[in-house]
This record gives sequence, structure tokens and C-alpha cells, in this order.
Amino acid sequence: MSDSPLADYAGPFDDDKLREECGVFGVLGAHDAANFVALGLHALQHRGQEAAGVVAYDPVESRFNSVRRLGYVRDNFTKPEVIAMLPGSSAIGHNRYSTAGNKGHTAIRDVQPLYVEFAMGGCAIAHNGNLTNADALREELITGGSIFQSSSDTECIVHLMAKSIQKDIPERMKDALRRVEGAFSIIAMTRTKMIGVRDPLGVRPLMLGKLNDSWFLASETCALDIVGAEFVREVEPGEMVIITKDGVKSEHPFRKDVSKFCVFEYVYFSRPDSMIGGMSVYEARRRIGVELAKEAPIEADYVCPVPDSGTPAAIGYAQQSGIPFAMGIIRNSYMGRTFIEPSDQIRNMGVRLKLNVNRALIEGKRVVLVDDSVVRGTTSRKIKEMVLDAGAKEVHFRIASPPTMWSCFYGVDTPERSKLLAHNMTEDEMADYLQVDSLKFVSLDGLYRACGKDEGRNKACAQFCDACFSGDYPIPPSDQMASGRLKLEPAE
Amino acid sequence: MSDSPLADYAGPFDDDKLREECGVFGVLGAHDAANFVALGLHALQHRGQEAAGVVAYDPVESRFNSVRRLGYVRDNFTKPEVIAMLPGSSAIGHNRYSTAGNKGHTAIRDVQPLYVEFAMGGCAIAHNGNLTNADALREELITGGSIFQSSSDTECIVHLMAKSIQKDIPERMKDALRRVEGAFSIIAMTRTKMIGVRDPLGVRPLMLGKLNDSWFLASETCALDIVGAEFVREVEPGEMVIITKDGVKSEHPFRKDVSKFCVFEYVYFSRPDSMIGGMSVYEARRRIGVELAKEAPIEADYVCPVPDSGTPAAIGYAQQSGIPFAMGIIRNSYMGRTFIEPSDQIRNMGVRLKLNVNRALIEGKRVVLVDDSVVRGTTSRKIKEMVLDAGAKEVHFRIASPPTMWSCFYGVDTPERSKLLAHNMTEDEMADYLQVDSLKFVSLDGLYRACGKDEGRNKACAQFCDACFSGDYPIPPSDQMASGRLKLEPAE
Amino acid sequence: MSDSPLADYAGPFDDDKLREECGVFGVLGAHDAANFVALGLHALQHRGQEAAGVVAYDPVESRFNSVRRLGYVRDNFTKPEVIAMLPGSSAIGHNRYSTAGNKGHTAIRDVQPLYVEFAMGGCAIAHNGNLTNADALREELITGGSIFQSSSDTECIVHLMAKSIQKDIPERMKDALRRVEGAFSIIAMTRTKMIGVRDPLGVRPLMLGKLNDSWFLASETCALDIVGAEFVREVEPGEMVIITKDGVKSEHPFRKDVSKFCVFEYVYFSRPDSMIGGMSVYEARRRIGVELAKEAPIEADYVCPVPDSGTPAAIGYAQQSGIPFAMGIIRNSYMGRTFIEPSDQIRNMGVRLKLNVNRALIEGKRVVLVDDSVVRGTTSRKIKEMVLDAGAKEVHFRIASPPTMWSCFYGVDTPERSKLLAHNMTEDEMADYLQVDSLKFVSLDGLYRACGKDEGRNKACAQFCDACFSGDYPIPPSDQMASGRLKLEPAE
Amino acid sequence: MSDSPLADYAGPFDDDKLREECGVFGVLGAHDAANFVALGLHALQHRGQEAAGVVAYDPVESRFNSVRRLGYVRDNFTKPEVIAMLPGSSAIGHNRYSTAGNKGHTAIRDVQPLYVEFAMGGCAIAHNGNLTNADALREELITGGSIFQSSSDTECIVHLMAKSIQKDIPERMKDALRRVEGAFSIIAMTRTKMIGVRDPLGVRPLMLGKLNDSWFLASETCALDIVGAEFVREVEPGEMVIITKDGVKSEHPFRKDVSKFCVFEYVYFSRPDSMIGGMSVYEARRRIGVELAKEAPIEADYVCPVPDSGTPAAIGYAQQSGIPFAMGIIRNSYMGRTFIEPSDQIRNMGVRLKLNVNRALIEGKRVVLVDDSVVRGTTSRKIKEMVLDAGAKEVHFRIASPPTMWSCFYGVDTPERSKLLAHNMTEDEMADYLQVDSLKFVSLDGLYRACGKDEGRNKACAQFCDACFSGDYPIPPSDQMASGRLKLEPAE
Repeated sequence: MSDSPLADYAGPFDDDKLREECGVFGVLGAHDAANFVALGLHALQHRGQEAAGVVAYDPVESRFNSVRRLGYVRDNFTKPEVIAMLPGSSAIGHNRYSTAGNKGHTAIRDVQPLYVEFAMGGCAIAHNGNLTNADALREELITGGSIFQSSSDTECIVHLMAKSIQKDIPERMKDALRRVEGAFSIIAMTRTKMIGVRDPLGVRPLMLGKLNDSWFLASETCALDIVGAEFVREVEPGEMVIITKDGVKSEHPFRKDVSKFCVFEYVYFSRPDSMIGGMSVYEARRRIGVELAKEAPIEADYVCPVPDSGTPAAIGYAQQSGIPFAMGIIRNSYMGRTFIEPSDQIRNMGVRLKLNVNRALIEGKRVVLVDDSVVRGTTSRKIKEMVLDAGAKEVHFRIASPPTMWSCFYGVDTPERSKLLAHNMTEDEMADYLQVDSLKFVSLDGLYRACGKDEGRNKACAQFCDACFSGDYPIPPSDQMASGRLKLEPAE
Repeated sequence: MSDSPLADYAGPFDDDKLREECGVFGVLGAHDAANFVALGLHALQHRGQEAAGVVAYDPVESRFNSVRRLGYVRDNFTKPEVIAMLPGSSAIGHNRYSTAGNKGHTAIRDVQPLYVEFAMGGCAIAHNGNLTNADALREELITGGSIFQSSSDTECIVHLMAKSIQKDIPERMKDALRRVEGAFSIIAMTRTKMIGVRDPLGVRPLMLGKLNDSWFLASETCALDIVGAEFVREVEPGEMVIITKDGVKSEHPFRKDVSKFCVFEYVYFSRPDSMIGGMSVYEARRRIGVELAKEAPIEADYVCPVPDSGTPAAIGYAQQSGIPFAMGIIRNSYMGRTFIEPSDQIRNMGVRLKLNVNRALIEGKRVVLVDDSVVRGTTSRKIKEMVLDAGAKEVHFRIASPPTMWSCFYGVDTPERSKLLAHNMTEDEMADYLQVDSLKFVSLDGLYRACGKDEGRNKACAQFCDACFSGDYPIPPSDQMASGRLKLEPAE
Repeated sequence: MSDSPLADYAGPFDDDKLREECGVFGVLGAHDAANFVALGLHALQHRGQEAAGVVAYDPVESRFNSVRRLGYVRDNFTKPEVIAMLPGSSAIGHNRYSTAGNKGHTAIRDVQPLYVEFAMGGCAIAHNGNLTNADALREELITGGSIFQSSSDTECIVHLMAKSIQKDIPERMKDALRRVEGAFSIIAMTRTKMIGVRDPLGVRPLMLGKLNDSWFLASETCALDIVGAEFVREVEPGEMVIITKDGVKSEHPFRKDVSKFCVFEYVYFSRPDSMIGGMSVYEARRRIGVELAKEAPIEADYVCPVPDSGTPAAIGYAQQSGIPFAMGIIRNSYMGRTFIEPSDQIRNMGVRLKLNVNRALIEGKRVVLVDDSVVRGTTSRKIKEMVLDAGAKEVHFRIASPPTMWSCFYGVDTPERSKLLAHNMTEDEMADYLQVDSLKFVSLDGLYRACGKDEGRNKACAQFCDACFSGDYPIPPSDQMASGRLKLEPAE
Repeated sequence: MSDSPLADYAGPFDDDKLREECGVFGVLGAHDAANFVALGLHALQHRGQEAAGVVAYDPVESRFNSVRRLGYVRDNFTKPEVIAMLPGSSAIGHNRYSTAGNKGHTAIRDVQPLYVEFAMGGCAIAHNGNLTNADALREELITGGSIFQSSSDTECIVHLMAKSIQKDIPERMKDALRRVEGAFSIIAMTRTKMIGVRDPLGVRPLMLGKLNDSWFLASETCALDIVGAEFVREVEPGEMVIITKDGVKSEHPFRKDVSKFCVFEYVYFSRPDSMIGGMSVYEARRRIGVELAKEAPIEADYVCPVPDSGTPAAIGYAQQSGIPFAMGIIRNSYMGRTFIEPSDQIRNMGVRLKLNVNRALIEGKRVVLVDDSVVRGTTSRKIKEMVLDAGAKEVHFRIASPPTMWSCFYGVDTPERSKLLAHNMTEDEMADYLQVDSLKFVSLDGLYRACGKDEGRNKACAQFCDACFSGDYPIPPSDQMASGRLKLEPAE
């Protein structure tokens, strides 16, 4: 059943990109906590633009209040009348892209945080990631009398918690999380606690911060920066932190495992000003550009980024190659994601609404275009046409990630495998298809080196989750295999 | 937890009236069923003005679609784009006033019909009435791992259904309804069936109608009229009708009991053009006026209704007494329930925004004002002032119901007992308080006679539920007594 | 040129009625004057439902502020944030139906009051009525370099004022009004004055009221009642009142003429609780019913009004005839004018959305239906069908006005003459067309008697404007004749 | 008088920048012309973000239709239902920032294009620029009986046209424009013509383009690019082009004068992908960076732009100096101009909502920050703080324009002179005030060289209007001097 389907927020102009599905943020022990959550979610807007929700606990009325809205954080959660609905000193929030089940039709009831009232008190939960055994769990729970209200994976977790016979909420959460498989970085909140937990492989990020007596949890450090909080450390893979006004208690409720952090967070998902694993994301991207320049040099007049995500790698490529960096493609900063239901004529303009070639610069020149990734290839093709129309002599694409050949089941919205350009073509075929003078992707080893693994990828046990490039899935995608939606082949 | 509290729809100008909490309507076997439901709910708008919801089953996509909106039916459910979201040939709908828990703060998630997906398929439920053991059931269910999403009584029913081990939905519904106590007239819908059921005492109405091959269920006959359907019969107290394209099957799943239909439906809740128990509601009200004129005659120049609900009884009073009927008070037909958050100066105008005295008519005259009921007495007092300000010589109130002294727990929004004028004062004290020349209520026997019980009220076993007048509660209000919110005294 | 055309507010369910085009209200010398204007316009909502505007003069900032909004007064002008935009102790307002030029497409720029800044200061103008030489004036003014911003007649007046060489605003207004022909009741406001003026024939009403030190001007007395003001007197035909904090100055700037007040204000336009010419409108309508019963008696079981406008005449008819008054047709009080762009199925329901027959009462009975007027006859026909469908034995229509045969050019929205049922048919033909057992209209003389002219209509010089019934136009409709839109025939 | 004041679109987070007030775009001879105008205005959004308007001429109905809306082009003018309101093959449009009179309170009636109906037909006008004798003209026109509807300069032009006795619209426009002083680039449209005209000094840009049989006029070439039109040439200073389906006719109605194009268009207003005077704006900005590096070298680890407007100059500075270019400050791409009425806590975040420092990069480093201009200096100060907080060792500001010391009266929104940092301080004082290690502005000569005047600024007759830097006003600001708002001093 669908509730009032909403306008397709993703729209026909949506980037030809993989999409992180969520950002999470929480604070405990701050005056007007909801204000901090609004700021944190604003800083994490790139992780989910369709909707946002905040739950705050009001100790005066002993109740949890929730506001969930479609649209940008800045358009909803900055107004005093909204913040006034969320009094209290602890609050958590969630940015959302969309779900597998309801692509582009986010219903308010699917917007997190989820909130549940257990016998021992209320609990709000915000989840970044995706479960790989959600279908099986859901079937089992419905048979046992559970009523599902949403299409979200996360609801399995709360029903498992409701069925648990443990006496307190953190214990019920451990019970529940031991039953689930997949990727999860979760922030939960009870009347007195804020809980952060990452799956045993630590696929999605989760950061711990502090400002005076306030504790913060956030998907990325850039969200700590915006509130002026100090970055304390990353929550570890498999760790549960239970934060109260008395401080942080750390537990490790799961079996020990090797870390498999998502390498695409470095490539595209995270903001360049965030730090992961001790390295600035910007620096990792710049270094990918350096690796690319080493692996795939070319003679040219300019190195131009496809704005904005290609910029750091383009800077690195330019520095390594000595070819001048230039802004050959200009982005219209008034292009939102909101050309909803445009007229046909405008729809057909596609990428032109967002990008324009700096014609005077490009004309007659050999240009290296640096982009972060190629997914379906549709945008790359249009950009190439624009650049050639403007009179470029040669167009060379350099891609700051390996070919994207596999779907992600750990909290990223990927097109079906058959839609992935690299699933269907070799690098040379792609160059032909895009009709460019050359097309080169950085190697997996180059990517690993740029991300701080100087020795390159450890084939025996890769240091990151790189399933989208390698097909090497660290967590078996059970639901997908059960339903026949995925057939695993040996990793290339 | 509250979700985005909404503007107080009831507003400061709300009538000083008891409020029916719900109207329900359903159709099976009609092209564009949602259109019929929109019309039916529009005709039942007086039974709930805060919000409305419609669920339709789309056999093409094999899915249930739902639209739930705050505000009037006419403002939401008449638009082609809304109807287009609700394709299919069966649909049910619900009008809502508000709940005990969230007075004036209807959240979308509390708007019915509820929808649940069971292992054997989906089911939508619309409920008119109130359960008296909902608190106890809720506590039991939460302990067993059920997660409640709303503050609505009705959710107990669906959780009980989810826990049932019966194989089909009607059987699960019987299981569930045998556990609940209170008043319920329910319309439910599965992929192939529409189900109507009334509690054993039949407190709330439920009507069966037919138009060609389409079957209808509705709270009142006026909703059958608007779609042009023929009134077939009332669903009986304790009866469950299971309607498929092959016709209507009748079952009686509950213990046999005596009928206790709500007499206030005659007094105020139902529309005057509806038929109940073979009698037009208009005629019952006119006859109350006749009884009043017999029981409480007075010499006067005009009999004037307090518009609009006092009109039929005023006509009856005028006919019986021979005093001319006149419109001494004029209603502003542009006064909605929507003076939301008005400025102080406008708030203070109170009743004047809605009513004005026909000054030229009233000046120097003795006036009988006929109103349907007195609840808190606030409005009566203001009306009296307006009429005296306009120069009336005498003002005599005649009330077309007995004194309202007890709260209702069967689906009606009553103020706390202590706020009821008649709980605190005798008839004479009320006349003093209102500063009117005389004030008389119809007797319980007079009311029963007007409603077709020529012998008056059977004291041994009253033919209606009249608990709001007599304190004689046919279903024990268990939750209220458990919580100490109600202490029963012997009926006066 | 049209500015953003708006949804057709009149809708397909609009009453088959003539429509008064405007209501005006003003106050000088009251704290928060805009609040009073909001109340006054709410009481005058029946005179124009599409849009409303208020202009207030803020002496602190020495500026005029204006808010103009589509929709009901109660939905816009009751909010504190709107009132806060209109500070000051004098304010005027205007309710609008629509104009000849833009039927159903009210643009904000056509919503009054108009505001102009002259060299000697600002002036706001609200106009009820219609000019009959507006086209000619507009052409002349454009040739002289005036730029028109709206399609409103009223703009001619302000351009004439702008061209005047008089030194103060009242004098410029006299200059301008001496050039115009037609019907006008105008309220204007300068920094220190409120001005009220009626055309020499006094076609439209204008009332003067007082409350403590505040002065009021209003279209009807019901608007004085809502603010608690005392009715002082009517502004006379041809009179200009200039109100300052020092009191009211009366002038008579036009040639003397006989009064020709619009008789349709008694029949339908004005509210029944208003007083005109010393008589309550309700009483005039009741007396029309008495006249009708004398002129067109019939044997029947019930006299039923077509609600709500037929009610007073039905009461009179019942009283005179001795036939019982009954509510045979019930109005849905939740039917607004807002079924905008409904689905086809709902559109086809037409009158049923608004009215339902009290089936139990009507079945097998002979019914007299009393309505205020017949315009196109479309609604009358549908009502008759509903009543017959419900099983009435006989249906007799009695109409509380003479046949409407001519268009009005003095501020009323009339259909083209060819659409008027009575223009095309005799009374008998109309009865046949409507398929009723009988159809009778009150006579012109009967109408005049009911409205206080005991001698009936003075054929030599009618005491009212009754052009819509008689074709006897007291002001020559110059524009219409120039354009060939109207051809006058001798009055019947 | 103000009409419904609107939320302050500029908001408290508005950039500390000068603001171009308008962008204009027109097309003649294109199917669905309004679609092209929507695209063109979207490309020109940076020239005015508060509101946009489009007027199209519909030859079928022989009427001009207009839609004017507050907010972004993409949110209003891309919807099929809006485009459907604007049929026809010629259309013009206008983006607006705000006016001197109503800063931040754009009323719909102030949104252009203006539309006027003259005796010889309708005319729509869109104006980029500002008149310097508008106050004097307005006073004269009001005395003559003209009624002004807006606070816009442009309305003077249309009243002058209305008063002209010329027989056709282009001639009336020449009459009018010969009376006005100031800067104007105007696009006008009649039923059959599109007219483009620039003031004799050509202060604001106006470009002519062509695509098949369609002709275009636009403020910048980037708007021709988005519709795929070929750039034909600039309309010359003092030239009027009259375009019909038969082609372009050129006239020179004004006295001959020297060109004084606004140099700030190169510095900040125009988009970097636009071409002006044969040079790419991006290239001009990059060359300013080169000049800056020559004029004000410094030893540092990184050259970082203040994004996004400082980027081209930072690239130039890095190239000339050999210091690595790096993104030391990251822009939140979800920061719109729409943090309307935020809570205090969020308001206080100021620039952090938009910018974050790339902490890992900056820590311990010497940084050159390149920005386009310093206006009030408030933003520069906050950026400096952020960079120091992040641990930078040294912060050197390099500004890609000379000190902004004078107000602009030719269509740019400048703060009062007293608010301009450079009006009050020397370069050294500013460095102290901003507490940076060094602060340097490019010289006027350096700016001129970068903009293609290899010989630098011609002191005898500057090749550009640079009044904001030099106080050398090429058009006397008459109104400002008359009112004492401006006192000219000798240019420094």
C-alpha cells in the first residue's frame, strides 16, 4: 500500500550518481538539542535530500516529540516554530534519500527516526545502512503477529526489540541486532541515553564528538564542525557506545570481525571536508587524481573537473601532470533538485540546466575531464557532447574510481546491474560508446593507495568494502540471492 | 509522542455541543469507488470535521491505496488527482472528529481507515465508536511485543487480529471483536470483501444500501441518498455482514443482547434527513418540540430556533403552541470552523461571528428560544445576552433534550463531568445562571415518546442508551473506572 | 492582459442566483481599525465571496498599508499576523464577487480597495456598484496618457481624480463623480478623513454607524451589529459624508434626483437581519410570502422553503395559507463554494452535494416549494426532480419575486438576457419546462406592498429600481447600448 | 504604501556582496517562447533571485499574458501549467533582486516586465539598470495626473510613453528614453516587435542571439548558450534594435557618447562562462589573479579561493605564483538563500551554514585566501576566524578588485557609503580590522589590464564605469545629489 505518493523529488535531472541513502546525527546534553540536530543534518544533507526527521525528548513533559518533513533541512528545520515543537536537551535526526521499495515516492511514514513505545519506555532510532536479511525477518515477524507500518528495513529492528524479553532498551537492541545481517550505523535515543552502534564490519561511518558537556554522534566529521564540536574518535566496527550524562560506555556485543569500510565514501559519498580514518576526504580524492595521472597520462591543454564532485581529483591530476587546471565547465548554482514535472521542452535540456561549457576557454583545446565515477554513463555522454559542441579539439575522460560494475546492498541506491555501463562494456567499449578520445579509470590498487593503503589492495582480505567495483561482497546479500535478484559471479 | 501537532481545528468558536466522533462509509462493486466514498463522507461531514481518509483496493496492481487528509472532505477528496490515487471498485472511508488522547491535535497517523498487511492479505478498517477496555488491551498487547503507532482504540482491534491464528480475515476479526468491549460500528475491507459489524448493543448506527450491483455501508441513510443508493436495512446489533460480489452473508458472532441505540443520535448527532429505526430524524426532533410545548407551555410572541440544530423542535413547539415560528436569530453561513488563531479582538466576538439577532423582529417581544441541548451553557448564555441586547421583553429557553449530566464513553466527545452545567445545577439554578425568564428541558419520557416509544422510557430496561442523561451505562466503562476517572452513582 | 488566472472560485455548483458584486465597510477612529473591518467584511461576506481587501492608514509611519487576498474573509483577515500588517485607527475594506470582464478569474490587482498616491497625499477607494459610462471614460483617459492597471470601473474614478486640478481629495472626488454615470456607493479614506458617497439615485445601500468615538460606514446594518455599533442613519442618495475625528459633515454635490433603491436587495442580496428603509429585510421577505399566498393560493400538505434564501417567504406563505411549514429540503452545511475542479462523477451530482430531500416527510405529500427567484431555472429543475424522486405527490413552486427578465448594469452579475428563463418563456411555459404542477411569481405590486409601498408600484415613477423585472432602467446603460450589447424595449 | 510585505528573501545570511539588480531575456519567433524565456532566466538567476516575471504575446487570442512570481525561476517557470498560461511565439522576462525603496520586500506589483495598454496596442517592458532622474520625473508626472502603481524607476518610462503623442510604440519609447538619465538595458515587446535598447554609455550589457528563425536578447551570453542560440553581437551603447519576423533593424536615437561598461560585471556580476567584449569573464577573473600575484606576492603553502566567486582569480594567482591551488574552504551546496526567520541559535551560525574549512588541509599551513571583493567586510572577518580556528599558521587575503568605496546608482544594490569598509579605512587599517597577516587589493590599472585594456586605466577618460572604486561617476546621480544623499568628492 502506498500513502499519498509524492512528487518525484529525484526528478529527471538527478545526477547519474550512486546515492548514499542516509545521514544520521544525535546530541545528548545540549540546550535546545533540536537546533544542533538541524545544523548537523544540514551539514549532512548530501547523504539524503528527500526528507528529514528529528525526534527530541522533552523531560518536562516526559515525552518524545517528532517532526518529519519532506524536503531540505534548511527549508523545514530552521524555523523557530518547528524547533519549538522539539524541546529538550537530547535529540536525534535522520536525512533520507529513498528506499529500494519506494524509489522517489517517500511517504512521511517512511521518514526516520522511527519511534516506538516499549513497556519500559520510548525509543527513537535512526539507521544508516541496509539489512540484507530484512525480507526473511519481516516474513517471520508478520507470522508472529507483528504489524509493519513502513517499507523500511529498520522496522525489523524495532519489532525484534519489541519481542525481546530483555529488561532494558540497550539489551533489547543487542538482542535485535544479533539477528540482523547487513550494514548499519545506528543512533538511538531513550529518555536518558543516546546509543550509537556500528555493524561488525563497520561499513558505514559513525563519528563521536564533544562540545563542553554535550556528546554528539554523526555520520561525518563535517557535521561536528558545523556545531563547533570537537571530533573525539570514530565509533569502532562492532562497537556500541551508550552515552549518558555521566559519559560514554563502550561495549562490543558482536563477534569480532575485520573492518570493511565502504571505499565509495572516499570516492563520492562523504563531504570533502570530512575526515575518515585519519585522512581528509579531500586529500584522498586529490591523491586519486595523482594516481590517475600516473596510471593514465595524456597530453592536453587543460585539466577540467566535472563540477563539483570531480574537482579534488582534477586538482591532483593537474598537479601530477603539470597540465593547467581550469574551470572548463561551469555549474549553475541555482539548479536544485527541484525541477519537478517540468514541461517537455525544459526536460529535454537535461544537463544544460545545470552545466555550461566555458566556451572561450575550451574552443580549440585538448581537454582532460575528471569525474568521480561513471554509473549509467548518460551524463558523461551529454557532457562530452557539450564540450565538443563548444569546439574542444580532444576530450579525454579520467575517472576517479574503478568501473562500477556491481550493485550495493549496504545502504546505497544503485541502478540494477544491467543499467551499469561498466557491467556491460569494457573500458575500450565505454570509450567508444561515449565517443571520447580516451577514457581511463583509476585502478583498484591506485584507489587503495590514495586512500592510505600504500601497499594497494590486499587480495586475500581487502581492507575496504569495494563490492561495487569488485563484486566481492563482505556480507552475503541473502534476500537478494533468495529472490534471485542477484547471482554472484567470481570477483574479477 | 506527538507528531507535528496541527492547528487546533476545533478552535475557540466551536459549538458548545457534544460531538459525534466519526462517520464511516464503504462501497463494493462500483466503478471509481473512491468517488462514491468521497460523496458519502461529504454527506457525513457533520459526524467528524477534522480529517478524513479513504482506502481503495486496486485489483490491477493488487494493492491498497490510501489518502488521509486533515480538513473537510470537499476540500480534499473531490479533486481528480486525489481520486486518481485511489483506483478500484471497492473503497472505504472515515470522517474523524478527534480522540480522547489528542483533543484538537489530530495527527495524520491517527486518521482512519487503518490499514494492515496480514500474512493472508491486506485489510483496511474504519471504526465509529469507542472501546471501554482499550487501555487494558493495549497494555497486554505491548507486553506481548506489539508496537502501537497511534493513540486510537481501533489499533487494539488490528493487533488482536494480527495475533489471531485464524486463517481468514473475517474469522480473525471475530476473534478480535470478542475480546473488546464498548461501542463499535465498523466497516472493513479486504481484497474481495467488505465487512460491516456492530457491537452487540448496536450503540452506533450502520446502514446497508444498494445501487445496481454496488453494495454500500454507511453511518446514516443521508449518505446513501447522496449517491442515489436505495436503503436496504440497518445492520443489526451484534451482526456481521460479509459482502462480496456474490451478495451479503449475515452472521451473528456475539452473545445475544438487547439493543441500546444512542438516543442522542436523534437529538443532535444524525442529520435531520436521515432515517433511523423507521423514523425520520427530522420528525423525531419536531415531535420533541411538540412534547416540549405540552410539558412546558408559555405565553410568547415568537418561537425562534437557535439555528440550525434547534429548528425542527422549534417548528414542533410552534405548531403545538400556536405561537408564530420566526427566525429571530440569523446564522452567518460563511462561518466555518476555521477561525484559526484569530486576533484577540476577533476571538472575543465569540458567538457574534456566527449568529446575529434579527433586531427589528425581536425588539419588545416575548421570545421562546428552542435549542437542542445545553452542555456547558456558555453559548446559551451569550445567545441570551444578544437577544436581550436587541430589546427582547422576555426570553424563555426550551431545550429539546433532558439535562446532559454524564459523560459518554461510546464514541462521543463530552466535556469532563464537572464542566457539564446540568451536573452542577438544578433546572432552576440553570435558569438563574443563564438569567432567562424560564428554562425547561424535555423529560426523558417525552424524549422517548418523540422517538417512537409511545409508552415512554422503560425504567427496567431502557429502550435506548441514554447514559448522558441518566447515568445508566449499558456497557461498563472499565478503563475509566480502573483509572478513577469515573465514579458511578445511582442514576437519578 | 491577464495576470495569473486563478481557479474558478464560483465553480460549477454555484447557485443559480443573481450575485451582488460587492460589500464595503470602513471605520475611522478605532483602535486596531483593521480588526473591525475584518469583522464587518465577514458579516458582509454574502455580498462578495471571491476576494477581500483592507487598506489601513498607519499614522506612526505615515503610510497606507494594504492586504488583498483571494478567498473568504475568515480565512485571511482574522489572523494576528495579517492584522499586524494593518496598524492604525482608520481602515476601509471591500468584498468582491467578480467583474464583467474577468468572470471567475479574479486577479489580485482587481481586488479593491484601490489605492492611489496623489500629490496631496494617498487615497484608498472601495466601490460597490457599476458605472454605465466606464468604457467611454476609459477610452478618453487612455488617449490622454492615463495607464490603466485593472479592468475595474473604479479605476476610471481614480484617474479622473488624478487629472482634477482641485487642491484636496474630497473636491477631486466630486469632480470625478460628476463625470461618471451609474450606481455607486463608495467608501474612501485619506490620511485624516473617511468619505462615504452614494450616487444620486441611491441604487446601492450605504449605512452610517457609531460606537463611542468611532464612525462606521457599511453596506448593511448587519455589519454594524457584528461590531456592536449603533445604526445612525442611511447615507442619502446623492449625499457625500466627510468624516473626521471632529464628526460628520454632509454635502450634496450632485443634481437632486428621485431615489431608486434596488428592490432586489430586499428580495435576495441583503442579509435578512439587516434593516433597510426602516424595515427588516426578513420582515419584507416574510411579507412577500404573505402576498404570494394571497395572489397564488393552492391546497397542499406542506410549505417548504428552498433553503436558505426561501425560508422567510415560506414562513409568510405558511402563516397566510394555514398550511404547515416544514423543512422538506435539508441543506448540507459543509457545502462551500469550493468544490474546485472536481472529478466528473462528483461534478455531475450538482445540487445533491448541497441539498437533500427529507424523504420520510415528503413521500406521498403535496408540497409548496418557496424560492426567492428563478434566474436560469437550472437549479429549480433539479430541485423539482429530487422532490419527485422522493415520492412527492404534487410540487408547486412559489417564487418570492417577479420573473427576472432583464440584466442589471448597476453592480449585479446577471447572466446574458438570453439565458434568463423568464426572458424566453411565459409563466405557463416555465411551469411546463420545469414540469411542476404549478408555478407562480409574486406580482410587482405585491412585491412593492411587501417592501412597504402599501399603494403598490407607482407606474409613473417607480419607487425602486426594478429594472431586472420591468426593463425600466433609471440610468441609461450607455456603454451597453453603444456596444449593441443591450437593446431596450418598452417595459412590459 | 506597501502591499503585503513578504518574508525577507535576502535573509540574514545574504552574501556580503554587491548585488546586480536584474537580468533580462527575450525571444521573438519561437514555438512556446515562454519555455525559452524560462531557460534564459534560469541561466541569469544570479542577476536577481527574489522574483521573476514573463510576459508572452498570444496571437490567437490577441492578448498579452503575464505570470510574475516570487522565488526562483526553476521553482515557478518550469511547470507545464505555468508555461500553458503563456502561449505564443514571442515573450520577454525579467529576474529581479530588489529596489532601493523596498529592500527585501519585493511586492508582486514591483516584479517586471511591466505591461501597459496604449491606444495603439500593448507593450511589455523589462529593464536592467537604474535611472538617476527618476524622482524628478515622477514628481512631474504625478502633477500631470499620472498614477504610479509601483516604486520602480521603470514606471517613469511607461508613463512618459503614455504621454507621448507619437503614433507607434518604438517612437514613443525614443521620446521617453530621451527624457531619462541613467543606466538602462531594456527589452520591450509589442504584438509584432521585440525591441532592445541600451543607454548611450552602455553601462549594463545586452546581447543579441539567433537560433534558426528565432531572435534573442539577453543580459549575458550564458543565457544564449542554455537555449542553444548563437551569439550574434552585443547591442551597442546608445543603440535601439527593433526586431520583427523580417529581421533586425538598428537605430541610434541618442547623442553619441563614449562607452562606459560596468567593470564590476567582470569582477563579480556576470557568470564566468559569459563572454563580454570578446573576452570570457572567467579568463578576465583568472587574469586578475595573475595581476594580483604580480602586484602582491607572498610566500605560502596554498592558494585557496573563497568559494565560489573567488575561484578563477585563485587559479590565476596559483598559476602565476607557483603556490599550489587547493580547496581549503568547502561550500555546502544545499545552502540556499532560504533560511527564512531561523531560530536565534541557527542565525548565529552565520557563515558556517554555508562554508566549512577543510581542516586537515589547512592545519599548520600558510594560506592565501582569494576573494572577489570586500564590501562591508563582515563575511571576510568570519572566514578569517574559521580558517584560524582550524589551525592555519598565516592567513593572507588577496582581493580581486580594488577597494569598493563608492555607491553605485546604475542598477546595483550597494550598502550606504558609510557601511563600505574601504570608505572608512585604508588598506592597512582594513588588514588590522580583519586581523589577517596581510591584505592586498588589485590595483585599478591591474584590473583594467586583466579586462583587456593592456595599457591600464586611461585617467583622462576611463574605458569602463568604475565609479564604485573611483567615485568617477560617468552619469551625474541627479536624484541622489538633489536629495543630499550623495556628496561627490574628487576621485582618488
